Amino acid sequence: MLNNLDEVFGALSDASRRAMVERLVRGPASVSQLAEPFAMSLPGVVQHLAVLEAAGIVSSHKTGRVRTVQLVPGGLGPATAWIGRQRLPAEARLDRLSVHLSPPEDLS
Amino acid sequence: MLNNLDEVFGALSDASRRAMVERLVRGPASVSQLAEPFAMSLPGVVQHLAVLEAAGIVSSHKTGRVRTVQLVPGGLGPATAWIGRQRLPAEARLDRLSVHLSPPEDLS
Repeated sequence: MLNNLDEVFGALSDASRRAMVERLVRGPASVSQLAEPFAMSLPGVVQHLAVLEAAGIVSSHKTGRVRTVQLVPGGLGPATAWIGRQRLPAEARLDRLSVHLSPPEDLS
Repeated sequence: MLNNLDEVFGALSDASRRAMVERLVRGPASVSQLAEPFAMSLPGVVQHLAVLEAAGIVSSHKTGRVRTVQLVPGGLGPATAWIGRQRLPAEARLDRLSVHLSPPEDLS
């Protein structure tokens, strides 16, 4: 598998792009919906989206004149996995302990 | 709390810097030990370490002529937490399910 961690972490190093990801976790959005909360020109938003799309974090499709953007399922997976592995031994032990101590979560 | 996610994700967007973090998870290392596996000048390594240090991922101290570098405990915490929150609802459900289905981990 091609390792695109450079692109993924690079894409996440910008607060506006992270905010777009946070919005898209709640569901797909049109480019203008995504632009709304930002004091940013539409071309600026489109440029940020291009970075996220090149990193495999979002995808988009156009219907008529509306471009809809959505998260790629698992797009953040390799980055999540990498960062999850970088734990000091003591931190890893604490994490495993907390799994044992927490009450079972509701599956609903 | 000052948000330094830009710096942390930016620091992780380079494969050499990620390799240094992977090495430091196993324990502190001198700058020359860190430089060893890389076809990179010592000043190049020092520059990468400065980026990791500015992001709060590593710290270093000098004893005599030897500078020792180590991971900052919890330095990746905010980035780990942010990326962990960005899950589509279906992925989050699957994760919770897998916690219920996996056998208890050995705590040793």
